[in-house]
Amino acid sequence: MASDYTKVSPDKLRDFTMRAFEKVGVGKEDAATAADILLVTDLRGIDSHGVARLAASYIKGLRDGRVNPRPKIQVSSQAPATAIMDGDRGLGFVVGHRAMTEAIQRAKAVGAGFVTVKNSTHFGAGGNYSMMALEHDMIGMSMTIGGKGMVVPGSVGRGLGINVFGMSFPTGHGAPFVLDMATTVIAAGKVEIAGREGKTMPVGWAIDKNGEPITDPRKFYEEGAGLLPLGGLPVTGGYKGFGLSLMVDTLCRVLSGAAETDQMAGNHFFGAIRIDGFQPVAEFKKSMDASAERLRSLPRAPGVQRIYVPGEVEYEVEKQRRAEGIPLHASVLASLRQMAQEIGMDYDL
Amino acid sequence: MASDYTKVSPDKLRDFTMRAFEKVGVGKEDAATAADILLVTDLRGIDSHGVARLAASYIKGLRDGRVNPRPKIQVSSQAPATAIMDGDRGLGFVVGHRAMTEAIQRAKAVGAGFVTVKNSTHFGAGGNYSMMALEHDMIGMSMTIGGKGMVVPGSVGRGLGINVFGMSFPTGHGAPFVLDMATTVIAAGKVEIAGREGKTMPVGWAIDKNGEPITDPRKFYEEGAGLLPLGGLPVTGGYKGFGLSLMVDTLCRVLSGAAETDQMAGNHFFGAIRIDGFQPVAEFKKSMDASAERLRSLPRAPGVQRIYVPGEVEYEVEKQRRAEGIPLHASVLASLRQMAQEIGMDYDL
Repeated sequence: MASDYTKVSPDKLRDFTMRAFEKVGVGKEDAATAADILLVTDLRGIDSHGVARLAASYIKGLRDGRVNPRPKIQVSSQAPATAIMDGDRGLGFVVGHRAMTEAIQRAKAVGAGFVTVKNSTHFGAGGNYSMMALEHDMIGMSMTIGGKGMVVPGSVGRGLGINVFGMSFPTGHGAPFVLDMATTVIAAGKVEIAGREGKTMPVGWAIDKNGEPITDPRKFYEEGAGLLPLGGLPVTGGYKGFGLSLMVDTLCRVLSGAAETDQMAGNHFFGAIRIDGFQPVAEFKKSMDASAERLRSLPRAPGVQRIYVPGEVEYEVEKQRRAEGIPLHASVLASLRQMAQEIGMDYDL
Repeated sequence: MASDYTKVSPDKLRDFTMRAFEKVGVGKEDAATAADILLVTDLRGIDSHGVARLAASYIKGLRDGRVNPRPKIQVSSQAPATAIMDGDRGLGFVVGHRAMTEAIQRAKAVGAGFVTVKNSTHFGAGGNYSMMALEHDMIGMSMTIGGKGMVVPGSVGRGLGINVFGMSFPTGHGAPFVLDMATTVIAAGKVEIAGREGKTMPVGWAIDKNGEPITDPRKFYEEGAGLLPLGGLPVTGGYKGFGLSLMVDTLCRVLSGAAETDQMAGNHFFGAIRIDGFQPVAEFKKSMDASAERLRSLPRAPGVQRIYVPGEVEYEVEKQRRAEGIPLHASVLASLRQMAQEIGMDYDL
């Protein structure tokens, strides 16, 4: 790790984050929920979606009035397994946590539960919500609309959201199986990182207004440029990534009754399905473990030390960071220090 | 269309297919179900999964005893929204149709229904089942295990199934939104077609035992070769296609309690979710239509005549084929003629 990173204690970071939310008007319980989710995001190594965004996105949104610190979240339901939630522009963490809890409760009652959400705001990393199902021995599902960034096959420019799809499954031992993916080739954060580090991007991430590959991150911000859907160009299955993105858009936005806008991080979809609605949980977990073990034992390609199943890298990072602390970049710490000063709270990281 | 294609009347083809199934011992109702599903597959232009496989796959399987013509399909359920089905090695069409019907009934009762299936056989094109939800104003979900053909990121050779994921959503006008995709870059059928036509494959479909791209279809059958997951190599998101494939494997196989084998087309997963469990169906459909219209109206890339939403190409092919007949290749007709002779039925196509 480079010397411009400092390791911060998880407890300290969680406390700092919670105090920041409270300072700008979020209630104690909601501030704790939001801080817990941001902490787990950083613990799992999803640094792009953790406290790196606390100052510029979440706290700023609350101070601007774009995000409502005391939302009146409403739920309505027409069937035991389904509900629709209006997040009243609350913090996406709080709304998402409430909605996933609702999905889990419905699954407890009838075996499966689904909640579509409108009028929420950015909820961070999607895996945090699908993973809430795991301790209940359920399968979890979490989706969200992302900002418009995908080039729809056959079109020019950003026509559809960088929409995120994910499911989580419990296992008996080791890492749970967690799938949490943008339906574009990569998330937009990777373009930002390449730009910041002065690196070129691989062919296959983005195209310009003529459909030509972009490798210079600066060109990504030109008119008509955008990210390719997962699969890339149509010849390698890009219409599938487009279809997945549209599926997420439909479940999060159309199903929740939200209009099409350019500000689209406020629609989510959550689901929970009880494993014991199908078979004994112990049997399922045993089979999950055998499945992961078989994949890990496949013949390895030259130079590959280890085969990882989805969610395993994050699981191991979390173990390490819980023990050793969370490495935060100097620029992130600077943003938090400045934020603390602006909102008048102690900085102790 | 080349002259080695003959257009066949849909009614005649459906009748021929149904008689073939009955001739090898399938009951009248099940034969009708299977014939209907195969017909719609050919009508929608998914020629790789239609009657092209009738002789060599389905009828052969029934004659070999691999497929059970009179299965005793069993359902057990532990919660209102969930069930597990044992297909008793029946035709995948029949088992799949029964399972999706079960999912729809459960959704009628509580808002959502899911059925995982073991001991089935190849069910053809997945979209046929998810689309069964449409006439009930539900969202449909359909998945199946495919034969082992995917190279897991970091590994060598075929380590995971060419597993198929799909969802369907009703619309107000025109084509429903139908997503039905292999979680590999392409389905294996495309390699076969390239080989038959003596063409090379694009880089990005398959790799050999050294991880090098294969463009010669013949090399696809060498030891250690296989299809890339959707997304291709890890740098362009191949671990996402791997994750999607493993998700399908988990829902179809692990959740149904089936063991890991190399013969893996017999596990499926179906779901149905009631739209009016969330909001009025008319509102949903209106929003779906607006969404499709917006996508179709995006600025087009040079040389592109029209932007298609998922399911639209198949919808238009079906309209044309219902009016003009289904073009069947001479080799397919020859296989059906020979099959008719072998099982002792009239050939009238």
